[in-house]
Amino acid sequence: MKNLKLGVIGAGRIGRVHVQNLLTRIGGVEITRISDCRIDQARSLAKDYHIKNVSEGYGEILNDPAIDAILICSSTDTHSQITIEAAQAGKHIFCEKPIDLSLEKIDSALKAVQKSQIKFQVGFNRRFDPNFKKIGESVRRELIGLPHLVRITSRDPSPPPAEYVKVSGGIFMDMTIHDFDMARYIINDEVTEVFAATGNLIDPKIKEAGDVDTAMVTLKYKSGALCCIDNSRKATYGYDQRLEVFGTKGCLVASNNTATNTELWSAESQSKDLPLHFFLERYTESFVAEMREFIECVQTNKTPSVSGHDGRQAAVLAMAAKKSALENRPVKLTEIL
Amino acid sequence: MKNLKLGVIGAGRIGRVHVQNLLTRIGGVEITRISDCRIDQARSLAKDYHIKNVSEGYGEILNDPAIDAILICSSTDTHSQITIEAAQAGKHIFCEKPIDLSLEKIDSALKAVQKSQIKFQVGFNRRFDPNFKKIGESVRRELIGLPHLVRITSRDPSPPPAEYVKVSGGIFMDMTIHDFDMARYIINDEVTEVFAATGNLIDPKIKEAGDVDTAMVTLKYKSGALCCIDNSRKATYGYDQRLEVFGTKGCLVASNNTATNTELWSAESQSKDLPLHFFLERYTESFVAEMREFIECVQTNKTPSVSGHDGRQAAVLAMAAKKSALENRPVKLTEIL
Amino acid sequence: MKNLKLGVIGAGRIGRVHVQNLLTRIGGVEITRISDCRIDQARSLAKDYHIKNVSEGYGEILNDPAIDAILICSSTDTHSQITIEAAQAGKHIFCEKPIDLSLEKIDSALKAVQKSQIKFQVGFNRRFDPNFKKIGESVRRELIGLPHLVRITSRDPSPPPAEYVKVSGGIFMDMTIHDFDMARYIINDEVTEVFAATGNLIDPKIKEAGDVDTAMVTLKYKSGALCCIDNSRKATYGYDQRLEVFGTKGCLVASNNTATNTELWSAESQSKDLPLHFFLERYTESFVAEMREFIECVQTNKTPSVSGHDGRQAAVLAMAAKKSALENRPVKLTEIL
Amino acid sequence: MKNLKLGVIGAGRIGRVHVQNLLTRIGGVEITRISDCRIDQARSLAKDYHIKNVSEGYGEILNDPAIDAILICSSTDTHSQITIEAAQAGKHIFCEKPIDLSLEKIDSALKAVQKSQIKFQVGFNRRFDPNFKKIGESVRRELIGLPHLVRITSRDPSPPPAEYVKVSGGIFMDMTIHDFDMARYIINDEVTEVFAATGNLIDPKIKEAGDVDTAMVTLKYKSGALCCIDNSRKATYGYDQRLEVFGTKGCLVASNNTATNTELWSAESQSKDLPLHFFLERYTESFVAEMREFIECVQTNKTPSVSGHDGRQAAVLAMAAKKSALENRPVKLTEIL
Repeated sequence: MKNLKLGVIGAGRIGRVHVQNLLTRIGGVEITRISDCRIDQARSLAKDYHIKNVSEGYGEILNDPAIDAILICSSTDTHSQITIEAAQAGKHIFCEKPIDLSLEKIDSALKAVQKSQIKFQVGFNRRFDPNFKKIGESVRRELIGLPHLVRITSRDPSPPPAEYVKVSGGIFMDMTIHDFDMARYIINDEVTEVFAATGNLIDPKIKEAGDVDTAMVTLKYKSGALCCIDNSRKATYGYDQRLEVFGTKGCLVASNNTATNTELWSAESQSKDLPLHFFLERYTESFVAEMREFIECVQTNKTPSVSGHDGRQAAVLAMAAKKSALENRPVKLTEIL
Repeated sequence: MKNLKLGVIGAGRIGRVHVQNLLTRIGGVEITRISDCRIDQARSLAKDYHIKNVSEGYGEILNDPAIDAILICSSTDTHSQITIEAAQAGKHIFCEKPIDLSLEKIDSALKAVQKSQIKFQVGFNRRFDPNFKKIGESVRRELIGLPHLVRITSRDPSPPPAEYVKVSGGIFMDMTIHDFDMARYIINDEVTEVFAATGNLIDPKIKEAGDVDTAMVTLKYKSGALCCIDNSRKATYGYDQRLEVFGTKGCLVASNNTATNTELWSAESQSKDLPLHFFLERYTESFVAEMREFIECVQTNKTPSVSGHDGRQAAVLAMAAKKSALENRPVKLTEIL
Repeated sequence: MKNLKLGVIGAGRIGRVHVQNLLTRIGGVEITRISDCRIDQARSLAKDYHIKNVSEGYGEILNDPAIDAILICSSTDTHSQITIEAAQAGKHIFCEKPIDLSLEKIDSALKAVQKSQIKFQVGFNRRFDPNFKKIGESVRRELIGLPHLVRITSRDPSPPPAEYVKVSGGIFMDMTIHDFDMARYIINDEVTEVFAATGNLIDPKIKEAGDVDTAMVTLKYKSGALCCIDNSRKATYGYDQRLEVFGTKGCLVASNNTATNTELWSAESQSKDLPLHFFLERYTESFVAEMREFIECVQTNKTPSVSGHDGRQAAVLAMAAKKSALENRPVKLTEIL
Repeated sequence: MKNLKLGVIGAGRIGRVHVQNLLTRIGGVEITRISDCRIDQARSLAKDYHIKNVSEGYGEILNDPAIDAILICSSTDTHSQITIEAAQAGKHIFCEKPIDLSLEKIDSALKAVQKSQIKFQVGFNRRFDPNFKKIGESVRRELIGLPHLVRITSRDPSPPPAEYVKVSGGIFMDMTIHDFDMARYIINDEVTEVFAATGNLIDPKIKEAGDVDTAMVTLKYKSGALCCIDNSRKATYGYDQRLEVFGTKGCLVASNNTATNTELWSAESQSKDLPLHFFLERYTESFVAEMREFIECVQTNKTPSVSGHDGRQAAVLAMAAKKSALENRPVKLTEIL
């Protein structure tokens, strides 16, 4: 099979992760050009991985007829515009989450995608995490019968800086969006209503920035099943990423990953490792797997499993949760659409 | 110390548990008389434990000046009336939960208790469970700092018969009431608002009886902390009783109890025992411990840790949850009081 | 069924455990008399449990025609003599381990038992522990096929005083004897050869007393299966009692018991309770269960599952291990018999 | 830093693992030439990783002045000869275990290494496994005080073919050799005496090939500490690789690794994943880490942590174990040297 030629837009932390995975863990690709409005970042990444072409704008990437596909790893506010232009240019797109903070812009982007023949995949990498993927597959194999209750725990090890919070779109669009997608993915059902209870319990600067740091979100599914997502911006013991699905025939549970499977038994306690602390450690394999799927979909003309619709629905859920928290009442998704 | 003389009102399942625990695990007491409107039950229990006096009505118990204290183990609709009469008769009272299904009756009962000098303890035995008690004490010792999130999982192994459901007062008053008490106990804070999402996912007869079988209840505390209780009437793998409290400095987690700590590793899986299936097995020790506390409080003139107010608050939470589910909106406790 | 009438010889720690269990957890028995050469101990125990008759010697017990059965809980050096006399007096016998420190005396005692019609049970309570019993039954149900490897970990929380060590018969007869019995019980096979490696790593006083404090003992079974027992007199984290049986179709593993199933996750570690520290806590249920079996065997004329032969074989293994350690070579059981 | 130039001798399974790791996970190296007496294997591996030069003999590698270091991944009987020639040629050497089956040849090889200035590292990759490494470091940090007992469980998922067994040098040299090295590494102490109990319980063909398939090996350390290694050639539940070190202040325990941290709770059992089945999955990270150390040692002129002496000692232990099993007696290492 011919090597796929890729352009990478955005050379920040997540762009670097994808470049490294593509070149060292996946293969079968060539990264033709990297762009970043902070040109130094693009240069630095390109140098580390022996990539020849670098530019400030992404135009050079979209205009290069040799490039088959692009990764959109730039800031959120650029995602929808780049998606539209890239779709028109016939480039396959892997787009980091969220597609945009505005439903209108998301819809414009998805429309452009639909008109084209391109593959479009959204970066909900957690679907590819071995723990969650196994649970998703076990649900589909009906190992627990019909799902009734879903519990998602998602707690960050430490809060982001206030400056980031201000432009993040809020906790639901920035952090819970992964959990909203997980809620839909894990039992393959649509959510119809959202109730969000929130708190400012950690950092007053987050409140000043107009956001919350703690949340418990209840989701009702079409099937009648219920889900609770709990979020905190600060778990001292590390990155807490757990999941549970309860159904008519049993329960599936994912606990946290640790660096080792060792314990120390002393006169004080029996203790084991803390959960993996950093999201790049925790989701190492899921970042590789989502990119592997994207490459494979482009190469073999398959449809990516994480669609534009998935990206849109997660954003709609985030919007509904925000409205629910503001108005302190359950919000139906039909109120958002 | 002189043996305490007890009368037991109600010789059903839970009455039997207390009698057995008092005589075999606790000691220092004498059970003077057992009454039950189904006189055969009273006789059978009395015979098994060599108790001399049996009656159909509880009047003989309240009128016996030798009796120091009573256990109210009769049907819920009799609790408040017996409490009033016993308080007037100066008998210390251990009362099974709930105190009553109506707030008015609960308040009458508590008023009578307050006017008297008697000890009054409500049967929220789970506070005495070693797992939950250790977490409660750890929270009070501030091992996790300030509590932010509480998660309570409480799932029955199988649904009750429809006839029982009809007179139970509904899932919140019958089953979740334990979890409402746990929510208050575990972080020593008052709940101010309740949102209940419910479902009829298990048995259509429960729906016909006017009740639900699945619930996710969100609680907001005065401190701003949040709690999610999830309930199901049917967990195929057994009685699922877990608890988690997350705070500024860490997280406390209680998992299920099993009959043994053994595992079987085979070509198919690594498997361990199911959770203890029946509530009497699961809460064996907590039933003993609550009764031990009651006896000790009477004998040494201490105030029981589970008060009439605790019994009332759990009932108020159940009422708020019911209202919330009916009206699909968060309900403040001040709406109930 | 008529209450069984019992005499208890020896009112020390273990005698007290059995008396308490018989009267509070088992029932159907009457303890007619307690004897102890330290008469005060007998009186104290009798008083606590409202037992009427007390004596210094055990003669009054053996001579009382009303007494059906006895418990031998006196010091080891009296076991065989009392067994012989009690068997001649036609009393059923529950005898604490070991039967004696000398094979000759053990054989005399067993001969007396054989000549009589009495039931004789040896106090290898660990066979009745829920963890180990479940593994034993799982092996018999062939859940792991043919057993190949057995691993027994048995470590005390703290070493006994040197005075005790001097009269204990040595670590193999005093401590490992339980493990030797477990090795035979757990896979229902006979051991043919023993190799014992030992060490004095904990307390020099144990060495001065002529004993070791650390051991690793390899057993070869008739079937060709192999077993390793590891012992230490001092595990800082508590009483370590684990077991593993590996076979053609899988592996059965018993881990330690803890007081609760709770964990604390903090910035330092994820920690859980230590193993139960004291043998009376750890083996609470097994002491009850062995006594329940003894009573039942006497009442219903069944043969106890822990026989005099079992008591003898464990002692033979202890002797073989001692010889092996002294001579630093594997010792066949036929060298001892 | 200049890229290190490597030659790889032996293009079988393990050679392929190292080549892949060097090129995708480590970097900073160039693989100049691959040789294999089965030239097709060399060609196939070279093609997959775009390596230019291939040869049947290893002479071309040793004679190429541009090559800095070699990996010896050929069959065991060639290790010592290649080591001697490579040392004379001044190439740094990473040598797969065992160095040789004969002590004489091992010593010749180590002598040649000693005379040269080269780095020499033996492929005991398990020292680099995150579980075992963490325990080793914890022992060195004295988290459990002085070590008293070591338990190593090492069971293969399925037995090798009889043809392999015949040339393997026997279970101790082929399989237990890793455990012998682990025993020395994990508490940083030398073994002085070995007792091996063995069995033929799995496959009669292994017996016909003159080998055993089950073993329990007791080691005595200089310090007086004791170790038990248990081996089986067939664990139906997967590759069982566990370790425990017990000391004056506590115990360190490593359990098996699984593909996910998920559980399924059903009406039948609570089950989790089987241990990782294949050694390449189980030790993925340790193969990477040992190679990373080798490269770093060469590049920065450090001494590898796994020395020729370590390779020799593990072989001596294997020989002592074999002698012990044959003669059914403990064998001192001084009998082998």
